[in-house]
Amino acid sequence: MTKSSHGGDIYKFSKDLNIDLEKVIDFSSNINQYRPKISLDFNSLDISKYADIRYVKLKKKLAKRYDVKPNNIALFNGASSAIQTILNSTEMAVTIYAPAYGEYKKCAKKIKLINRFNNLYKEPEKDSFVIFVNPSTPDGKYYNLERLFEIWDRQNNTVLIDESFLDFTPNTTSFVKSNKLYILKSLTKFYSCAGARVGIILSSKKNIRALEKLTPVWNISTYDENHILGTLRDKKFEKMAIAKLTKDKKRLFKVLKSSKYIKKVYKSSANFFLVKLEKIDAHKLQKRCEKEKILIRNCENFDFLDDKYVRFAVRCKKDVKKLAKTLR
Amino acid sequence: MTKSSHGGDIYKFSKDLNIDLEKVIDFSSNINQYRPKISLDFNSLDISKYADIRYVKLKKKLAKRYDVKPNNIALFNGASSAIQTILNSTEMAVTIYAPAYGEYKKCAKKIKLINRFNNLYKEPEKDSFVIFVNPSTPDGKYYNLERLFEIWDRQNNTVLIDESFLDFTPNTTSFVKSNKLYILKSLTKFYSCAGARVGIILSSKKNIRALEKLTPVWNISTYDENHILGTLRDKKFEKMAIAKLTKDKKRLFKVLKSSKYIKKVYKSSANFFLVKLEKIDAHKLQKRCEKEKILIRNCENFDFLDDKYVRFAVRCKKDVKKLAKTLR
Repeated sequence: MTKSSHGGDIYKFSKDLNIDLEKVIDFSSNINQYRPKISLDFNSLDISKYADIRYVKLKKKLAKRYDVKPNNIALFNGASSAIQTILNSTEMAVTIYAPAYGEYKKCAKKIKLINRFNNLYKEPEKDSFVIFVNPSTPDGKYYNLERLFEIWDRQNNTVLIDESFLDFTPNTTSFVKSNKLYILKSLTKFYSCAGARVGIILSSKKNIRALEKLTPVWNISTYDENHILGTLRDKKFEKMAIAKLTKDKKRLFKVLKSSKYIKKVYKSSANFFLVKLEKIDAHKLQKRCEKEKILIRNCENFDFLDDKYVRFAVRCKKDVKKLAKTLR
Repeated sequence: MTKSSHGGDIYKFSKDLNIDLEKVIDFSSNINQYRPKISLDFNSLDISKYADIRYVKLKKKLAKRYDVKPNNIALFNGASSAIQTILNSTEMAVTIYAPAYGEYKKCAKKIKLINRFNNLYKEPEKDSFVIFVNPSTPDGKYYNLERLFEIWDRQNNTVLIDESFLDFTPNTTSFVKSNKLYILKSLTKFYSCAGARVGIILSSKKNIRALEKLTPVWNISTYDENHILGTLRDKKFEKMAIAKLTKDKKRLFKVLKSSKYIKKVYKSSANFFLVKLEKIDAHKLQKRCEKEKILIRNCENFDFLDDKYVRFAVRCKKDVKKLAKTLR
């Protein structure tokens, strides 16, 4: 296990600064700041028993959510575990549309990168496995994939679309399933539950069966299973969160746009903004923010980015005000 | 994911019989019927945040419990995931002392079996990876491993000792760590928490580092992390549970011993008994028990056993009384 690729490491940050976790103003983590209401007493769950080995109830609920059948769903111990299982299972060369989430590179054996910023329509190797994150990290760009799917079809690629941030982009749809397509879903970001470990792959029945053979039994905690079931019961959450986030994003965008240290703010369909700095580099900005207990995400370890790139997640009014001061 | 190898499948059982889960009298599951008291409000945990990627707090607590250092500990999404990771990481031939927990056979590539009932001191292949469960399943026998370790040393074997049931056998100790030894710990059985997914490997610092490189990040749920921390805080539990189980075991032993359908009750250091049947086979006994809503473990799918073998877990007085009636 290595340093968090998702955000800064707030545990280390709070320890280094010798402050409580709660005192950290965390612009680095891309977890939704709003949370669904869960009406469930976790203290009364029976943890003695093994869970239903087939997770029938959870799969049914997710099938409804994603408009597929339960046998189109494989469950994993978080998205990272899903990625590892799927990439371990293939001997194909892997093409990652980069920059992307770091776990992909860690798990893949033979890797090629395509720079989606300036070479999006480059043809991936024939018969290879391609990975595309939509909306992407760390910039949040939402791509219309039609032309890419034409290329992938032509190249006979097997395709994994990581839709971990798609819920932040309403009125978008996943592509239909085929034996050549896997869709990765994660409730972590939008439903604000990084502590509950459930990663989801949608694919054809045949693919799902093959993946499940590679998966350890009882890989979902009973607590987490119930957390997700509870989360999906809050019918008002999606609309509420999107409405609030839309306002919050505008506020943050304005602050970033007006800073003399920021040359460019990338258009984002997710709950964070990638920016390109000027007159300062990411390290120096990190140092300056640290003084205000603000944690930001230095993006220099993303492919095709360097120490001029930083990511800011959407946060509440008060936190953004504090950030604005620091960015002046 | 296949049918439970741990016990019967109570979910299927209750569905087939069309009765509530709670109505099933489950002699098949080897989970401790006593549970530690956890003084913790799970409803107030912050599930939004990613857990500490290093699980420092949990590792410290476990290090104390097992008398090792935190860097001798690797954490997994349950014992099954630990087994899978360790066996996937080796190209060595694998020798399993059988019968044993089914997951071992599922994960290993080149497998040899040693029948520990009648050929315990047979030499495993040189340089191979050996797996020994102590106390063993499905019989609960506790082995003094000294002579075996001499053999394994001579054969240059790498050794995995699965101690998932060792807590039921007080006053026993694990062997010391070396680069050739892995110890698998699980709190699931004794601490009665099959729904919380935490498997533990103890080994040398070097081995642990190598295993962690193969492990997905954030593989422990925040709920489960806290569940285990809470569990280990109940200082009275171990003594209490052992005292009660000792009584319960005597009661169950007597009932099994006196049944005309049972030829032999195996000596057990765990919380279950393996029996050899006579005048009836496991299927027929299952059918008969089913009528009384009693679920038992047919052991015919264990290596070197057949449909004459059944396992009974220790249960409360009332349940054992009901079983006694059925076995008459």
